[in-house]
Amino acid sequence: MKIDDISTYAAKLGFFSPASEIHGSMAGLYDYGYLGTLLKRNVEEMWRKYFLTLRPNSWELETSLLMPQKVFVASGHLENFNDPLAQCSKCGLKLKADQINESPNANHPIKCPRCGNLIDSVRPMNLMFEVKMGTTGSESAYLRPETAQGAYVSFHRQFKTLHERLPLSLGIIGKAFRNEISPRQGLLRLRELTQAELQIFFDPQEIDSEALLFPPEYKVAVKRPTENESFEVDAAYLSKELPKLYVNSMLSVYMFFTERLHIPGERVRLRELGSQEKAFYNKLHWDIEVNLESAGGYTECGGIHYRTDHDLQGHQNVAGKDLQILRNGRKFLPHVIELSLGVDRCVWSLLETNLLDEPQRKLLKISPALSPVKVAIFPLVSKDELIDIALRIYRDLSNTFVSVYDESGSIGRRYRRQDEIGTPYAVTVDHDTISDNSVTIRVRDDMTQTRLGIGQVKSWLSDHLDDRPHTEAVTTIR
Amino acid sequence: MKIDDISTYAAKLGFFSPASEIHGSMAGLYDYGYLGTLLKRNVEEMWRKYFLTLRPNSWELETSLLMPQKVFVASGHLENFNDPLAQCSKCGLKLKADQINESPNANHPIKCPRCGNLIDSVRPMNLMFEVKMGTTGSESAYLRPETAQGAYVSFHRQFKTLHERLPLSLGIIGKAFRNEISPRQGLLRLRELTQAELQIFFDPQEIDSEALLFPPEYKVAVKRPTENESFEVDAAYLSKELPKLYVNSMLSVYMFFTERLHIPGERVRLRELGSQEKAFYNKLHWDIEVNLESAGGYTECGGIHYRTDHDLQGHQNVAGKDLQILRNGRKFLPHVIELSLGVDRCVWSLLETNLLDEPQRKLLKISPALSPVKVAIFPLVSKDELIDIALRIYRDLSNTFVSVYDESGSIGRRYRRQDEIGTPYAVTVDHDTISDNSVTIRVRDDMTQTRLGIGQVKSWLSDHLDDRPHTEAVTTIR
Repeated sequence: MKIDDISTYAAKLGFFSPASEIHGSMAGLYDYGYLGTLLKRNVEEMWRKYFLTLRPNSWELETSLLMPQKVFVASGHLENFNDPLAQCSKCGLKLKADQINESPNANHPIKCPRCGNLIDSVRPMNLMFEVKMGTTGSESAYLRPETAQGAYVSFHRQFKTLHERLPLSLGIIGKAFRNEISPRQGLLRLRELTQAELQIFFDPQEIDSEALLFPPEYKVAVKRPTENESFEVDAAYLSKELPKLYVNSMLSVYMFFTERLHIPGERVRLRELGSQEKAFYNKLHWDIEVNLESAGGYTECGGIHYRTDHDLQGHQNVAGKDLQILRNGRKFLPHVIELSLGVDRCVWSLLETNLLDEPQRKLLKISPALSPVKVAIFPLVSKDELIDIALRIYRDLSNTFVSVYDESGSIGRRYRRQDEIGTPYAVTVDHDTISDNSVTIRVRDDMTQTRLGIGQVKSWLSDHLDDRPHTEAVTTIR
Repeated sequence: MKIDDISTYAAKLGFFSPASEIHGSMAGLYDYGYLGTLLKRNVEEMWRKYFLTLRPNSWELETSLLMPQKVFVASGHLENFNDPLAQCSKCGLKLKADQINESPNANHPIKCPRCGNLIDSVRPMNLMFEVKMGTTGSESAYLRPETAQGAYVSFHRQFKTLHERLPLSLGIIGKAFRNEISPRQGLLRLRELTQAELQIFFDPQEIDSEALLFPPEYKVAVKRPTENESFEVDAAYLSKELPKLYVNSMLSVYMFFTERLHIPGERVRLRELGSQEKAFYNKLHWDIEVNLESAGGYTECGGIHYRTDHDLQGHQNVAGKDLQILRNGRKFLPHVIELSLGVDRCVWSLLETNLLDEPQRKLLKISPALSPVKVAIFPLVSKDELIDIALRIYRDLSNTFVSVYDESGSIGRRYRRQDEIGTPYAVTVDHDTISDNSVTIRVRDDMTQTRLGIGQVKSWLSDHLDDRPHTEAVTTIR
């Protein structure tokens, strides 16, 4: 699918659209509409349930979006979180340097794509947004460029509160902000984005002590810098080379994409970043990528980052406080493996990979656990008797499931309307309902219909909407 | 309770603490710890379930936090969202003018509370945070000072997407930002806060057409500007004077505080604001207030604002677009009643009103539906046999409820630890469990204990944690 196809569909149906568009919106800012908000929250809730139950002592935090300058001195973002900004001295065009040239360097001069002039000025531009606080504006705060720093600066307090146990996993789902030089491609490059990030703090001596959480033959697709193509490997292969805690992290992210988000396995891969590509704070760095036509190929949707004690070290130095912990007679800074996820990119990927053009209908064949609306309730025709029953069912179901009630248009049109937004089930009240108290449940994917007593509808839906918990496949460790 | 008591308890146990504190935090910024994050999300989830099911055609949006300047030209915030800033020319102290003097005006000169000097300079200070966007920083965006504008600027699109029906209710839960002159009092005055706001868009001719959603004898406490004391009135009294849609809004907010958050009724009141106090955009304006010792009395935790078409009018003028809708042959701008809630203030109020010092224990007697942790699982003693069973139960329960497992310290101490954070139920595995497969469930509030088969624990907890849905008391309207 093309960017415009997804954007048009998303705006028309209520998934997302440019923010503040009546005032001529600013690039890189989007609003989620009524369906997008539900879908995005379902992704977040799924992340929470999956990653915060994988290991005991896993908790969520909600830390501030505005953080003082010192935080980013310590993390290195103030110095290093830059993109190369190229400006054409002839026509004035500004661009991210690496968008113009595949490998911009002194030997490959950059040409302006608008006027063809040679661009000689490329300077680093910091991507953080600064905010002046207080009555004089003398205090500098920054909108966080990643959620992670919130977990690092409060690690010491949380660790104490949570009885000083390791590993300790701290998750944050929330906004991050980046002054992207050229935001574009719908939700794929935003100035205001949502991340879901898990920071696993652990004793570096124990990075290889954890049991493998997956069977040794568990298969994943990988791309390595030394190979030209992706290939399939198993958990055993990865754990020969990489520490167990890191392998478990990689595999859980892969499983989340393929078996929870249900993004087709042939579109998902783990990509190892070469030493030149890795973020400045990472010792090990693999991305999780989804193959998206709209983005021209495999696209980063998250990453598994072994940040070592880079961040805690930085905070310790800048704050001038001893952040080491005492454990088994040793004093040390815990190390961190970060599981980072771009929530907006997941939403985009879900639409792109699930939106089907069937001959008779447009179908969003998304996993029912993620569907924004779970059930639609229709009276077959607009007669008071049928409407009353349908509304009664709607009221009852809407206490438990996100439900819509619709009485307008032909029944076929109403089914298609729900197919297009991914509603997995529809309940229809017809003339027989009056005498036998039963309704029709129609299934989105195969359009089959089942007759059911009204009293059984709720438990039927509960059974069918309940996605298999990951713990069936993965052993929870103590 | 005093501010410091709540703040100390909250920081020690993991509810909230000053943000970025290792770097010397900035005033008005807080982090939620592992318990506070759960509690806050429970409040938000409760708001969602209550206010978005009260009326059909109610949906949630997630709109951007950064919005272009034009939005706030249109809303009036750029001109009017100011606090009077007083500065002492002698000692330099800066203060919100109305904090120094009950009614600051020309006849009551302001005295500096630090040096006693007379303050003659009071100037308006805009409370919005500006952010420079783009590569040159020439574009001004603002961090939204309220969630509401997101719903207003996207109303037109959502209305179309949702088949042009009124009333249409659009809810937003999210951050808002205010450069408060003197942030203080824990979570009560923040620079970064969370609001939950519902915008009900309706045909102004129908403001009195809705049926009363509450019985006429439904009682609430009110404070009116013409009276010195609060007094009790009923729904019938209010609906004689105020339009039904507004009365329903007031009562639903009151019910949410008293019967969902379970803040004691004697501490809650609806306060009518006098014509001088009302926000500049409101035609009718009542606040919901909770009596808090920490704040020195009744404190605004939300409001019911009849904003008329003030905002849509402003956006229409500034955008130069016709935002009127066509309905029943008439073209008009919908009117708006806004139900606004300060989520952080609710969290604060919940701690202050539920934290009890009993002789043997500190007890957070919060409604189980809001408790951060729902159940704790303990082996009576640290023996492998009991630990294995307890961990198995923990794993099973933690898929459904937020659970903790604890094996350290005496059983009494473990119970008290959970009492202090408000965990309503604890499951203890003892020696009898090995032979009879049963466990003890201990209830927080009365410390009674019940014996139950392991297989029944989950459904017992589900029954006891399921709070009565509001629809039993309130008629849902079509």
